[in-house]
Amino acid sequence: MSRKKITVVGAGFTGATTAFLLAQKELGDVVIVDIPQAENPTKGKALDMAEAGPVQGFDANISGTSDYAETAQSDLVIITAGVARKPGMSRDDLVQINQKVMKSVTQEIVKYSPNTTIIVLTNPVDAMTYTVFKESGFPKHRVIGQSGVLDSARFRTFVAKELNLSVKDITGFVLGGHGDDMVPLVRYSYAGGIPLETLIPQDRLEAIVARTRTGGGEIVNLLGNGSAYYAPAASIVEMAEAILKDQRRVLPTIAYLEGEYGFEGIYLGVPTIIGANGIEQIIELNLTEDEKAALSKSVDSVRQVMDVLN
Amino acid sequence: MSRKKITVVGAGFTGATTAFLLAQKELGDVVIVDIPQAENPTKGKALDMAEAGPVQGFDANISGTSDYAETAQSDLVIITAGVARKPGMSRDDLVQINQKVMKSVTQEIVKYSPNTTIIVLTNPVDAMTYTVFKESGFPKHRVIGQSGVLDSARFRTFVAKELNLSVKDITGFVLGGHGDDMVPLVRYSYAGGIPLETLIPQDRLEAIVARTRTGGGEIVNLLGNGSAYYAPAASIVEMAEAILKDQRRVLPTIAYLEGEYGFEGIYLGVPTIIGANGIEQIIELNLTEDEKAALSKSVDSVRQVMDVLN
Amino acid sequence: MSRKKITVVGAGFTGATTAFLLAQKELGDVVIVDIPQAENPTKGKALDMAEAGPVQGFDANISGTSDYAETAQSDLVIITAGVARKPGMSRDDLVQINQKVMKSVTQEIVKYSPNTTIIVLTNPVDAMTYTVFKESGFPKHRVIGQSGVLDSARFRTFVAKELNLSVKDITGFVLGGHGDDMVPLVRYSYAGGIPLETLIPQDRLEAIVARTRTGGGEIVNLLGNGSAYYAPAASIVEMAEAILKDQRRVLPTIAYLEGEYGFEGIYLGVPTIIGANGIEQIIELNLTEDEKAALSKSVDSVRQVMDVLN
Amino acid sequence: MSRKKITVVGAGFTGATTAFLLAQKELGDVVIVDIPQAENPTKGKALDMAEAGPVQGFDANISGTSDYAETAQSDLVIITAGVARKPGMSRDDLVQINQKVMKSVTQEIVKYSPNTTIIVLTNPVDAMTYTVFKESGFPKHRVIGQSGVLDSARFRTFVAKELNLSVKDITGFVLGGHGDDMVPLVRYSYAGGIPLETLIPQDRLEAIVARTRTGGGEIVNLLGNGSAYYAPAASIVEMAEAILKDQRRVLPTIAYLEGEYGFEGIYLGVPTIIGANGIEQIIELNLTEDEKAALSKSVDSVRQVMDVLN
Repeated sequence: MSRKKITVVGAGFTGATTAFLLAQKELGDVVIVDIPQAENPTKGKALDMAEAGPVQGFDANISGTSDYAETAQSDLVIITAGVARKPGMSRDDLVQINQKVMKSVTQEIVKYSPNTTIIVLTNPVDAMTYTVFKESGFPKHRVIGQSGVLDSARFRTFVAKELNLSVKDITGFVLGGHGDDMVPLVRYSYAGGIPLETLIPQDRLEAIVARTRTGGGEIVNLLGNGSAYYAPAASIVEMAEAILKDQRRVLPTIAYLEGEYGFEGIYLGVPTIIGANGIEQIIELNLTEDEKAALSKSVDSVRQVMDVLN
Repeated sequence: MSRKKITVVGAGFTGATTAFLLAQKELGDVVIVDIPQAENPTKGKALDMAEAGPVQGFDANISGTSDYAETAQSDLVIITAGVARKPGMSRDDLVQINQKVMKSVTQEIVKYSPNTTIIVLTNPVDAMTYTVFKESGFPKHRVIGQSGVLDSARFRTFVAKELNLSVKDITGFVLGGHGDDMVPLVRYSYAGGIPLETLIPQDRLEAIVARTRTGGGEIVNLLGNGSAYYAPAASIVEMAEAILKDQRRVLPTIAYLEGEYGFEGIYLGVPTIIGANGIEQIIELNLTEDEKAALSKSVDSVRQVMDVLN
Repeated sequence: MSRKKITVVGAGFTGATTAFLLAQKELGDVVIVDIPQAENPTKGKALDMAEAGPVQGFDANISGTSDYAETAQSDLVIITAGVARKPGMSRDDLVQINQKVMKSVTQEIVKYSPNTTIIVLTNPVDAMTYTVFKESGFPKHRVIGQSGVLDSARFRTFVAKELNLSVKDITGFVLGGHGDDMVPLVRYSYAGGIPLETLIPQDRLEAIVARTRTGGGEIVNLLGNGSAYYAPAASIVEMAEAILKDQRRVLPTIAYLEGEYGFEGIYLGVPTIIGANGIEQIIELNLTEDEKAALSKSVDSVRQVMDVLN
Repeated sequence: MSRKKITVVGAGFTGATTAFLLAQKELGDVVIVDIPQAENPTKGKALDMAEAGPVQGFDANISGTSDYAETAQSDLVIITAGVARKPGMSRDDLVQINQKVMKSVTQEIVKYSPNTTIIVLTNPVDAMTYTVFKESGFPKHRVIGQSGVLDSARFRTFVAKELNLSVKDITGFVLGGHGDDMVPLVRYSYAGGIPLETLIPQDRLEAIVARTRTGGGEIVNLLGNGSAYYAPAASIVEMAEAILKDQRRVLPTIAYLEGEYGFEGIYLGVPTIIGANGIEQIIELNLTEDEKAALSKSVDSVRQVMDVLN
């Protein structure tokens, strides 16, 4: 009956914020691991977070390290490591660099926590989750990608603003890949259970969908340097909590398809049930022809990225 | 019966984290204000935080701006703005630069929120709080500096680690200035009510006190670039919550002395009662001769910094 | 900037639990008021709750009294007082007894808190809310009845059990009166945004709807003596929080209709936006013919009860 | 990685409130078990609590039963069962009746959850904890009695009121038996770390101590019928949380002494460290002669009750 142990790979803004939110909720002890060159800053961030514990009222050991031995027997591993696309870097270069990072990180994780569950956030997330899945040799339900929780959080934020309502009562639903490939199912999105289509004019709703699709880019453009990390971290933590507390939440996640929705051998954003076993179930919905076409297009995009993988 | 409004001046790491923690607790709507050149990043951070709301379950408008008009009628203002000391910059330069920042920020605050309460975090915090007090013309109970909550949070973290106990049961007590000037009252610090002196050997306790004194520097050294922000933000938010909810907490804060502890016309870290009126009361303790001497030394340090003020 | 003040009328199980949940959330100071004969037990419950504060970590003054003067200037008043139907008591007797209670309670409230908002829980709740509205002379948006939050909470509980999913992802939607008169809008009820009709066989869904309709009676039968109070109290507190924090939640409440849904001069369960002003807006939905008929039947039931009012 | 399981024995007010507070904190799934004659009310309370889940936002299975088989493999068992002293019942009768209850309850617990930890609340709690310890054959660290958390919660409440301060900053410390036998260590009790003796006049402090000693009786007298349950339940839940989350809290609990404080073979209220293993450690304090005498008197009282045990 000891505490849960959670490893966060990558001590950048998203990784650090994820670690902090995990500790705040007392979901377990947190180990942040990064490369040897970043060991001291990683330790510094971990210590700073720990020092917030007495004030915020949480008990959690938070440590920073570059030694994966300290991550041993983790109940959950969250991968936020990887590089962001820099000016002049081709998309294919990005994919191959991050693929290499995923492979080496995964080897370390598997070595020290062979029975853990892994959540992947690194972009391009569909292909990177696939890479971790292949490299780990884990069963598919224990390797999960994050994108839909974040996409729908952004959608819900924009809708709440539009209608001047509590975010608590807005639900949103997305399918498919992250970003431009996102397939928002507006007909499954509501305010207090009331379909959004009856509350928001069609053109405003389309504008919100468009804004959601480029929600990550909007933040990148505003920041000028760097990308979003508060909402991404919160989204991962919601998935982590569902797993660690066996909540059986209905969350859109990136899951490995073996025939579901007509696709095979690909990680794709679909509605899932998340619990102690990771992905407990993929929920299959009947899609309209339009939605099917959009999902197919999303699959094509993901496959194009996968083709770049070594 | 509308929501409280809180302004955070400065959108750096501490300011942003403060804004996020305020929103998480639904203490009110939050306006982050920074200089015009930082307007877009400020907006970006605010938007990213807001997008975490649906997932973390909080309702709060969070906005970023460079226009103080948007801060009008704030119930509380938190100042985190200012520069950090750079290599080659003398301490006196730092003081004068930040003094200028405080003055201009305060003028804007007073213009738009003449009845607000101000918490200052900018370093050197004793002198900067004094500057804001003078510039604002506010009564002394409505201008408060933060340092003791953070210092004692660090102390409590180290003690909890030393004894392998919950941080929830460790209390710590500090007087005087921030950092090297800190006067930790170990005899008023406990684990579950038991004096630490009976639980921790004297040399270990002294090491913990020494580590607390340089707690900020420890993080700076580890990070390599930048300084602590999680624990500082959490500390400010504890003070903010005490004010906004009129909790009458007993917290060590930087208060204006008019004879208390034998000092006059100086902002110094002392135990206070914090409630709806800001500083509701300064609590005067009987000090030992050693403690009096240490406090006097701390006062000298603060006065030396104040001498540099224009 | 002092604390909010909330009065709970009636120190029975529902009233007491409501007071406790309000204090836990630090929504304000709480005054529980009951009849003079119950003054000591009311004080006893209030004191017992207050003594839980240090352990649960909440600051709230909780007091018990029989003197309405102590409720003066309440920001919110919650009425749980009234008798339950006893064997041999006719429904009409019940209505008239509780009507008398509502009138006398309302006079006291209006006298001491002329600008407050009132939430009514006493049964039969539609008619009792109407009584309080008439007696208070308050504008309609400041007198609100509770039933739909509770009804949908029960519905959500049963659905979560049926599907073995987190309650967090189940939404439910009800219209009309409380209990047998309830008009559940299954087509507006979801699991993770997915319409329940696609997840639960029709006969099971009908069984769940039927169970929800008699959800109060199910608890009464099990308890043998008394009725539900945990879920009712939680439901009131959700409404109270929406008002006190100006959250603009979309909640089904009992609102005064002046033409909405085709009805006039009646308090009825409809979807509303709840914020600082109480009922900020009634949301009108397009109903199917079946739903219209069911709502009409519900209105007839409410009118029959209203006919008994003096 | 499935959820924790917690059994609450006894569905009276304290047991029910305990179950509800456990569920609110999502500490695990909760089984409430009572005698067959109370099976339906127990199920009714459990269902009512569960129906509050969607509104309060917690996921926890809460069930009521009279069949201990449903409690199998509990991680923690909390015993609140037993009778209260009725008019005309001698103290010795009470002891022997509750001893019989403890024995039969313990046999069932041991049968179905041989590796669990047990917290006892039933009065007279020192002797009842001893009974459960003997009957269970469990190692001493896995059988713990509650009294000190409650006693100090009451003390803290009275002090906070006296000083008009947040309960968050008041700590209190008690030793010895529950109620009249309580040995409050005022010198280890503080407001914001400041010894109470410097803040409250001696006579007021003595009045607060006296009121704390009879704190349970004060509630009994006010209620007229029944005894306190909010603060007792909250106190148990704090102990439960410390165990289930391995927090290593410093809490006053009723622990089995084997020489500590000079006593042998007796359950007595002492400061302990509570974590995953139950009582991780008993903390021994140096007592003054007065305190030693008071503790000795408390031990005599406990032994007198133990002499009545069969």
